[in-house]
Amino acid sequence: MIRLEYGDALAEAGGLSETDLGALLVRAGEARERLAEPRARGGGAAFLELPSSADLEAVAAAGEEARRRFAAIVLLGIGGSALGAEALLRALAPRPGEGSAGPRLLVLDSVDPGTISSAMQDLVPSETLVLAVSKSGETLETLATLAVFLGWLQTALGPRWKSHVTVVTDPERGPLRAFASREGIRALPIPTAVGGRWSALSAAGLLPAAAVGVDVAAVAAGARAEAARALSAPPAESPALVHAALVHGLDRLRGRRTVVFWPYADRLDALAEWYRQLLAESLGKPTARGPVGPLPVPARGPADQHALLQWLVQGPPEAFTTFLAVQDHGAEVAIPALGPAGETVLPGRGLSALLEAEREGTAASLAAAGRPSATFRLPDLSGGTVGGLLMLLQVSVAVAGDLYGADPYGQPGVEGGKRAAWALLGKAGLEAEAERLRERAARTGWTA
Amino acid sequence: MIRLEYGDALAEAGGLSETDLGALLVRAGEARERLAEPRARGGGAAFLELPSSADLEAVAAAGEEARRRFAAIVLLGIGGSALGAEALLRALAPRPGEGSAGPRLLVLDSVDPGTISSAMQDLVPSETLVLAVSKSGETLETLATLAVFLGWLQTALGPRWKSHVTVVTDPERGPLRAFASREGIRALPIPTAVGGRWSALSAAGLLPAAAVGVDVAAVAAGARAEAARALSAPPAESPALVHAALVHGLDRLRGRRTVVFWPYADRLDALAEWYRQLLAESLGKPTARGPVGPLPVPARGPADQHALLQWLVQGPPEAFTTFLAVQDHGAEVAIPALGPAGETVLPGRGLSALLEAEREGTAASLAAAGRPSATFRLPDLSGGTVGGLLMLLQVSVAVAGDLYGADPYGQPGVEGGKRAAWALLGKAGLEAEAERLRERAARTGWTA
Repeated sequence: MIRLEYGDALAEAGGLSETDLGALLVRAGEARERLAEPRARGGGAAFLELPSSADLEAVAAAGEEARRRFAAIVLLGIGGSALGAEALLRALAPRPGEGSAGPRLLVLDSVDPGTISSAMQDLVPSETLVLAVSKSGETLETLATLAVFLGWLQTALGPRWKSHVTVVTDPERGPLRAFASREGIRALPIPTAVGGRWSALSAAGLLPAAAVGVDVAAVAAGARAEAARALSAPPAESPALVHAALVHGLDRLRGRRTVVFWPYADRLDALAEWYRQLLAESLGKPTARGPVGPLPVPARGPADQHALLQWLVQGPPEAFTTFLAVQDHGAEVAIPALGPAGETVLPGRGLSALLEAEREGTAASLAAAGRPSATFRLPDLSGGTVGGLLMLLQVSVAVAGDLYGADPYGQPGVEGGKRAAWALLGKAGLEAEAERLRERAARTGWTA
Repeated sequence: MIRLEYGDALAEAGGLSETDLGALLVRAGEARERLAEPRARGGGAAFLELPSSADLEAVAAAGEEARRRFAAIVLLGIGGSALGAEALLRALAPRPGEGSAGPRLLVLDSVDPGTISSAMQDLVPSETLVLAVSKSGETLETLATLAVFLGWLQTALGPRWKSHVTVVTDPERGPLRAFASREGIRALPIPTAVGGRWSALSAAGLLPAAAVGVDVAAVAAGARAEAARALSAPPAESPALVHAALVHGLDRLRGRRTVVFWPYADRLDALAEWYRQLLAESLGKPTARGPVGPLPVPARGPADQHALLQWLVQGPPEAFTTFLAVQDHGAEVAIPALGPAGETVLPGRGLSALLEAEREGTAASLAAAGRPSATFRLPDLSGGTVGGLLMLLQVSVAVAGDLYGADPYGQPGVEGGKRAAWALLGKAGLEAEAERLRERAARTGWTA
C-alpha cells in the first residue's frame, strides 16, 4: 500500500498549519463525494472505473497477438496518448533476462523529420505493428505520422498492410474510428467519457504494456484497490486526498505555486512526465477567481540535486516538493568498501541505501530552509503498486480540481494554437485566420 | 548565425515596454563589460575561453583511441558532468548510416541499483571504457558508481583494468586527480576556474562527443565565433544580451518568473535539460534583495502542446516562453496527400513545415493570450551552430546573473543536503548531524 508522509509539509517547514490542513481535508472529503456521484461517473470521473473487464480481455487478446507476430511496435500518439503508455512501459517492462522476450516498443510522440526518418530506417515493415492512439481520432500530429507510416507499410506489404495496423480511439466517433471501420482494421476503445490524459488505464496504456509482457491484470487490480481506498478512507488517511489538500492549500495559502514531483527511482521518470501533463492540463484553468493551477515540475533522483536543488533551497520560496521513495527496487548493487581514492567511502552499503540517504538528506535540507515537502512511500515497483499510483494521482488531481474550482476535464486553452497551425498549413475554411497570421509575421521586426 | 526574434516579448503580448527593454539593454551591456574584464576571465567567466587548443588536442587524441579500442563507453558523472555531454551527444552524434560507426555511449547519472545493474549486465568489460567525470573529484554519486565499475573491471580484467579507465577532473586537486596520478590513469582537465555546469565545452563535454565521432573542432569554432560576437555586438543586436534582458526584465517587471525553454527539434531536448541546470543553479540565489531566480522549464516540440500549453495559455500568467526553431533539420519526410481518414490532410507538405506551423501557431496563441515569448532561430543542427548556442546561452545566463545581482558561479544551497546524506551514510565526523537527522525522522508521525 502506498503511504504519504507529510510532516515536512506542515508549518515547521514553511508549510500549512494543522488547522488549515484540517479545513482543507473536510473540503477534499466533500469533493470526493461529488466525484463518486453517478453523474460524475458518467462524465470525466469515468476514469475511476478503468479498466473494464471487457477492456482487459480485448487488451490481453491484442497484446498476445502482437507478441506472437511482431518484433517491433511503433506507437503513434502524443500527449495523453503517449505519456500513460510510457509511464507503464518505463516502470514495468521486463528487464533483459526477465520473462520471455517480446517485441520492442518505440513511442513516437513527435513529427520531427529526423526522428521519423530514423525510425523508419530502423524498422522492418514486415515485422512491425503500427499502433495509432488518439482519443478524438483527429490529432493533427498522429494523423500526419500515421499517413507517413501507412505509406511505408503499403509500399512494402501491399494489401497485407491492414494486419499491421491497430488503432485505439473513441468507440464510435472520429476519423480514426471511421478509418478502422472502413478498412476492417483492429480497433480498441477509449471510453467516450474518458479524456486522453485520463486514459492510461484504458487500452491506450494497457495495450502497449501488455504487448511487451507487462502483467496488466496486476496493474488493473492495483488500480481498482486504490480507487476503492481513495473513495472510502477517511480524508486524513487517504494519500490522494491529503496530497490534493497540500497542493491546493500550499498554493493558495502559502504561495507554493510550483509542484515538484521527484521520484528516487529511474523507472518512475516517465510517470513523472505523465503526472506533469495530468496536473498542468487539469488544473491550469480559468475559474471564477481568475486563472489558477500550480506548475508541475518533474525532477529525477540524485541528478536533480545537481540541477534543480540550488533553486529550490535558495531561490524564491515558491515550490512544494513531492518525493517518491521506493522500499524494494527489485535489484541491489553493493558498493565496494574501498573507493577509487583509496579510502573507505561507504562501508558496507548498497546503492539503495545511498539513494534513500540522498533523498532524506535533501528533504531535511529543504525543511531546514523552510521549503515544504512530502514523500510518497512505495513498497516496490510491482504492477499493482504502479497501477495504484496512477489511480491515486488521478483521484488526487480530480479532487484538487474541485478545490480550485476548476473543471479538471477538457483543455480549452490549446484550441487556439491548433486552429492557427491548421490555418498556416492551408486547411480549407481557415483562410481568413491564415491571412491574419501572415500579417502578424510580417509585422514582427524585432530581431537580435 | 543564431538570431532571436522577440516581437512577441514586447508589451502587445503582455511583455516589456520598449523603454524598459532599452534601459535593461544598457545595463546588460555594462554587465557584459564586467564579464570581459581580466579578473572575471580568471574566475567563473573562464568559460568564455573554452575550449583551449590544448584541450582540443587532448580530446582528439583520447577520443581517437577510444574509438579504436572500445565498443562502449560508460560515462559516470552527474549534473554538469553529464548534462553538457548529453546535450552535445543528442544534438550531434552521427545517426545510423552517417559517418563511421564508433562506440556507443551510455551516460549514467544515477545511483539507482536497477539502472546500474542492468548497465553492467549489458556491457562487456573487455570492450568498455569507464569515463568518470567530476570537476571537484569528490562527487558522492560518481565516486560510488566508479567504485562499483572499478570492481567490475578488476574482476574481469585483472591488472589490465587501468587502460579501461579515464577521468576528467580538476587539473591538480581532488580525490579523482589523486587516484589518476597514483594509478597512472589517463586524466583530462577541467580548468580550475570553470565550474561543472560551465564545462560543456571543456573535455567534460567534448571528450564523450569526440569518442562517438562528433566533429568537436566545428563545435569549438562555433563557440569561439559566438563568444566573439557576444562580447562585441551592440547590446540590441546580441541575442545573448537581449535574452538576458528579457529573462530578467519579464521576471522583475512583469512577474514572469518561469522561463519555458521549448525546442521544436528532438535533437535539442537534452540541451534544454542542460540549460535548465545552467539557469537554475546560476540564478537561483540569495541576493541583497532576497532570493531571486526564474524557474527554468524545458518543453519539447508539439508534444508539449498536448501537455504544458493549457497551463501556459489559461493558467496563471507567470511564464516567458523561449522557442527554438531550426531551419534545416538535415532530414525531411513527405506527408502523403491522402490521410488515413481518406481525405486530404496536409497537401504537399513535409514534416518540417508541420513542425514550424505548429510552433508559429503556438506562439500566436500565446501572444493572443497576453503571454510573452521569443524565438531563437537556428540555421541548422551543425556542430558550429550547437557550439554557438551553448556559448550564447552561457553568456546570456552570466549576464542575467549580473542583472539579478546574483553570483552565477557556485551552488552553496546544495551543501546542506550533501552533508546530511553523508551523515546518514555514517561518514566520520558527522555523527552529531546524523543523530539530529535520526531524531527528526523519529518525530515525523504525519502519514496518510
